[in-house]
Amino acid sequence: MTTKKTAYTVAVVGATGAVGTEMIQVLEERGFPVGELIPLASARSEGNEVTFRDQDIPVKVLESDSFKGVDLALFSAGASVSLEFGPIAVKAGAIVVDNSSAWRMDPSVPLVVPEVNALALDTHQGLIANPNCSTIQMVVALKPLHDAVKIKRIVVTTFQSVSGTGKEAMEELAEQSRKLLSFGEVQTEVYPHQIAFNCLPHIDEFLPSGYTKEEMKMVHETQKIFGDASIQVTATTVRVPVFVCHAESVNIETEGKLSANEARALLSVAPGVQVYDDPSRNLYPLPIDVVGTDDVFVGRVREDASIPHGLNLWIVADNLRKGAALNAVQIAEVLFR
Amino acid sequence: MTTKKTAYTVAVVGATGAVGTEMIQVLEERGFPVGELIPLASARSEGNEVTFRDQDIPVKVLESDSFKGVDLALFSAGASVSLEFGPIAVKAGAIVVDNSSAWRMDPSVPLVVPEVNALALDTHQGLIANPNCSTIQMVVALKPLHDAVKIKRIVVTTFQSVSGTGKEAMEELAEQSRKLLSFGEVQTEVYPHQIAFNCLPHIDEFLPSGYTKEEMKMVHETQKIFGDASIQVTATTVRVPVFVCHAESVNIETEGKLSANEARALLSVAPGVQVYDDPSRNLYPLPIDVVGTDDVFVGRVREDASIPHGLNLWIVADNLRKGAALNAVQIAEVLFR
Repeated sequence: MTTKKTAYTVAVVGATGAVGTEMIQVLEERGFPVGELIPLASARSEGNEVTFRDQDIPVKVLESDSFKGVDLALFSAGASVSLEFGPIAVKAGAIVVDNSSAWRMDPSVPLVVPEVNALALDTHQGLIANPNCSTIQMVVALKPLHDAVKIKRIVVTTFQSVSGTGKEAMEELAEQSRKLLSFGEVQTEVYPHQIAFNCLPHIDEFLPSGYTKEEMKMVHETQKIFGDASIQVTATTVRVPVFVCHAESVNIETEGKLSANEARALLSVAPGVQVYDDPSRNLYPLPIDVVGTDDVFVGRVREDASIPHGLNLWIVADNLRKGAALNAVQIAEVLFR
Repeated sequence: MTTKKTAYTVAVVGATGAVGTEMIQVLEERGFPVGELIPLASARSEGNEVTFRDQDIPVKVLESDSFKGVDLALFSAGASVSLEFGPIAVKAGAIVVDNSSAWRMDPSVPLVVPEVNALALDTHQGLIANPNCSTIQMVVALKPLHDAVKIKRIVVTTFQSVSGTGKEAMEELAEQSRKLLSFGEVQTEVYPHQIAFNCLPHIDEFLPSGYTKEEMKMVHETQKIFGDASIQVTATTVRVPVFVCHAESVNIETEGKLSANEARALLSVAPGVQVYDDPSRNLYPLPIDVVGTDDVFVGRVREDASIPHGLNLWIVADNLRKGAALNAVQIAEVLFR
């Protein structure tokens, strides 16, 4: 697919954001063969530096000639930036792995979670889309179950952390919490309502159907990644006062019967999955424990007696890593190694 | 059912707890015809006082002769206290409304939410059970939909506040949050894991099936209150870092078709329900807005395209009021007025 070199020039677009920062860290941690790192961001970040392999690298302002000589461009600066600069980067010869929603549902763009559909990369035309954080962790956990007994329907409710919105949302949660604990006045800037000690059933924009875009991403992206439009999905996505990691309560209806024990056995050998499921020891995945890890953690596996073939699962992953930066770098690893 | 008096002697068992405090407040707010209020609690609370109609009333230690002359006893001191003292109170001539799980599934004990099944009170034998908080708000919201198109299956995921555990849990959330915001060490005493900035998929004890008791309460209590064992329910109950109010993401499958607009119309005239559902104005029920209110708030009403007849709803109520104290007093109002 790509010419083999010993080291690649890698651009990170949105290098100072929550996901961009994590992308640079993941590239370093995993020993990705980076020759030169080019951190790119908007003019607002001019003068900032990022740290990579103990070097401080000045952030450059993203411009149309930013991608000369770039082999790989990791984008995480929002859909409008990706729509404008993704094709420019491809034209300049880079392979683009885009973390925004801009290209995900484009039929010519592979939407990839390496553990689930790495083969979709074979047909890429320079641009590869990274799925939404809440979709990624769900499909990694459901893949082995779908392979075994075919999933017919998914009912999912999410508990999503504020880091999915970005650094300023993390600051807002901390600041509002501090204020409330000292009986001060709370200001809301990032979210439409107070997030501290609250739950907002509202992520991304509302559509005429009453669903949010975030909820519909979980429907359409799941079908595209599994390559199966017959999988029915309905989602309710909720922002909770947690800093990092998304949790998901997932109910599945399957064609074949699978016991909770069989499901745990399949999950325990699935790539990228860790089973944390021992109620007798109060062991189940928790956002605060999963922060900074690479795997998707599954617990609370239970047979759902309300239908003939059903299961409930509790799925937690680091939304900045597997939900974003790590998955993007894993896609690049498949392409460049 | 009961002899009419102009005023009744009312005992509140567990008078110093989170729910007991709220019970006394609700009795006052609603002008319940209380002649004498007798606050009862364990020896630990001896020397404490409760405030009722601007009077400080000393808390008495609960003993077997505490119920002499008592007309109504509201219990909220845990299942073991109710198991022991409930029958003693009935024998002494009191009507008992019990907020614990002790008697809920006893076939001879009515389990009542007045908006849903007040008629079940007709057969009481002195003891009436108040359902679990998470069940109450769900059945109040689902009752008009069930009446209209018969609910076949419910998939529910809860976001439950720490006040459901009690006052010490509210203090633990505040204290842990304070510590974390100043980078201090967190101590866990009430919950098995840190609750601040975290989500715990664990409420009440685990059963061999992998479900918690809290989850199975939502299954069995819903069937009993609706008087319909054919309603299938599966639940995942989660503790979130919110002080007061439970939220629920509820997916229902119905026998007949109901549009989101039709559902909102039915809900808007249902007793005890308020519809808060206007995405264009970011209007949906939020725990922080519902604190201290009496109604069950419903929003995010959406048609679920994953099945022929399905709806998603987001249901929020004050777990200390409608979920506990208020519902108990409403039961007493039906019995005594």
